[in-house]
Amino acid sequence: MENFTYHNPTRIRFGRGQIAAVDRELPADAKVMLLAGGGSIKRNGVYDQVRRALGRRTVFEFFGVEANPDYDTLMKAVGLCRREKADWILAVGGGSVLDGAKFVAAAVPFAGEPWDILARQARITQSLPIGTVLTLPATGSEANDSAVISRRSIREKLAFINPLVFPRFSILDPETTFSLPARQVANGIGDAFCHVVEQYLTYPADAALQDRFAESIMQVLIEEGTKTLAQPTDYAARANLVWAATWGLNGAIGLGVPQDWATHMIGHELTALHGIDHARTLAIVLPSLLQVQREGKRAKLLQYGARVWNLHEGSEDVRIDAVIAATRKFFESLGIPTRLANYGVKADSAAEVARRLQARGMVRLGERGDITPAVVEKILRLAA
Amino acid sequence: MENFTYHNPTRIRFGRGQIAAVDRELPADAKVMLLAGGGSIKRNGVYDQVRRALGRRTVFEFFGVEANPDYDTLMKAVGLCRREKADWILAVGGGSVLDGAKFVAAAVPFAGEPWDILARQARITQSLPIGTVLTLPATGSEANDSAVISRRSIREKLAFINPLVFPRFSILDPETTFSLPARQVANGIGDAFCHVVEQYLTYPADAALQDRFAESIMQVLIEEGTKTLAQPTDYAARANLVWAATWGLNGAIGLGVPQDWATHMIGHELTALHGIDHARTLAIVLPSLLQVQREGKRAKLLQYGARVWNLHEGSEDVRIDAVIAATRKFFESLGIPTRLANYGVKADSAAEVARRLQARGMVRLGERGDITPAVVEKILRLAA
Repeated sequence: MENFTYHNPTRIRFGRGQIAAVDRELPADAKVMLLAGGGSIKRNGVYDQVRRALGRRTVFEFFGVEANPDYDTLMKAVGLCRREKADWILAVGGGSVLDGAKFVAAAVPFAGEPWDILARQARITQSLPIGTVLTLPATGSEANDSAVISRRSIREKLAFINPLVFPRFSILDPETTFSLPARQVANGIGDAFCHVVEQYLTYPADAALQDRFAESIMQVLIEEGTKTLAQPTDYAARANLVWAATWGLNGAIGLGVPQDWATHMIGHELTALHGIDHARTLAIVLPSLLQVQREGKRAKLLQYGARVWNLHEGSEDVRIDAVIAATRKFFESLGIPTRLANYGVKADSAAEVARRLQARGMVRLGERGDITPAVVEKILRLAA
Repeated sequence: MENFTYHNPTRIRFGRGQIAAVDRELPADAKVMLLAGGGSIKRNGVYDQVRRALGRRTVFEFFGVEANPDYDTLMKAVGLCRREKADWILAVGGGSVLDGAKFVAAAVPFAGEPWDILARQARITQSLPIGTVLTLPATGSEANDSAVISRRSIREKLAFINPLVFPRFSILDPETTFSLPARQVANGIGDAFCHVVEQYLTYPADAALQDRFAESIMQVLIEEGTKTLAQPTDYAARANLVWAATWGLNGAIGLGVPQDWATHMIGHELTALHGIDHARTLAIVLPSLLQVQREGKRAKLLQYGARVWNLHEGSEDVRIDAVIAATRKFFESLGIPTRLANYGVKADSAAEVARRLQARGMVRLGERGDITPAVVEKILRLAA
């Protein structure tokens, strides 16, 4: 295990009716910018609960943060925030709204060009405080300090990480997610599962607890994810999914271990090029990536097979084939197709993705830095 | 799963050489009270590393915090702290020193009689900030907000919990624990294991992730604990033990689930009466408690048997017998005897412990409140 620092200061309020606690979490005189997505929160009762909790505080609303939150949209929110001198951001929505809130919170007090926060990893020295009301379990953004922002006008999708943007508090009421379309729930399960894989399926690093926690999260996503898709209003199953998704990317399982993230980097390009849902790009890339990287990941693939999929029979290679197949089948069972062809994408997209990563200087992806653009192309051809 | 709030603000710095980071964690002008135990840190190099990290800061040293830290000892530290106007507490040691530091930190600014913090759960509104350098993996005190304090002069042992006493930072360098006597390492493993059991082995509460995390911690304690006792300077095994012990009682596995803690309450009395090491009292009580409470804990005992001890054969009762035996055997394998007789304690101590708990009003222990003094006596007679 490598040395690490662990600090996760977000206060989580979990369970039924917890949105009312927004009132206790925010200062009475907070001037709040409420950031939200397309308006589903007005149809499922979340908005009403939030406004009730906000009481008489001054609130500025900004709706319209899209999936893969866009820089141009968010800069409008930055403008509103600056104009009205809002001093708290309350993000109400899924990972995109939460990621957007982090960018807005960092951009508002930023003296230079906000794009530099993403494009040049410009140093941030302050941020508005952020609270969140999570309505879609998937990204872990409710309990971490990172955000991914797109800029469609120049076809970019970039991330930033800074401890200043940890939410001060996050409200997780599983009931707010009951009305989600099955496709979004499935995407959330798939996304969370891939977050775990990126931090776990690398090479052994003598991190026994991180490994077992990662396996635990995957087991819960498999068992409870399946349950909650079948019975969307089963509180227990949905609560377990929500909590597992948070732990998929709240930092704990990635401490002191190598991480991969190539599936995400390749997936981001597929979203940028073809508009495929983020989680679906991961489900396309991951099985093929595991196949191509099976030697480097051999020990962990066997451990993953034994502990998560109960695969103990046959030679090592037979078990590795089986665990890759099980992973693919899991995504398919969620209703997520795992082949580029299922999305109408031609095999020659593989070369284009490789070229784009090359152009970004992303030429050594993966935990060993051995996923070159040529390997990316090979992975995507296998995913055709 | 019940509603819960989760907030653990302690910053952990984990790994080799991390004591130097004390310098980055403390303000340059901090007036530090260094709290420590009997002086082993002067023999194993920890003290030198800490003093080096403290640099030119003003430091007041207070050595002599004993196992089961004593109120009278700690009040001397409170006096020193007040006299010298120390504004930070740095605890260097095991759980006893850390618990003691929490009490001192709360008592220094407390206007009333500090004993009331324990005896009357008096309200605390401020605390000195605390940093810790952990040298004995066991209690989780490095990442939680509770402390247990003894007062030998009146044979009391009481706890308090307050978010104000979460350590601001904790340094966990596994190498600092290499020189611990095997008995203390074994006690730490047993103690941490029981912390998990108290939060896990109750009745099912639809908390899939908390269950699997608890099972993960137990598996790591079993596997890596055994390894580290055999090879005390194996860094990987010791690091895994240290990290697992922290997670045994940092709050995460107890969220939204019923908790027992009867083993601890009974064990505290055995320590008070007979001076038996804390962890050893738990190893005495737990197997008999599980036997007596087997009906109420049936479902979780079976799950624990299957997932942690791989017990799948035979009837439910056969498997429950087997898992209780496996638990007892685990303690014994650590070198911890599990019978009162092994400690020269007569069976009639059972009645005395029951009387003491009765006198304290602790008449409904356990997750269902069904462990009356009569049941306590039955448990201890079975542990004879």
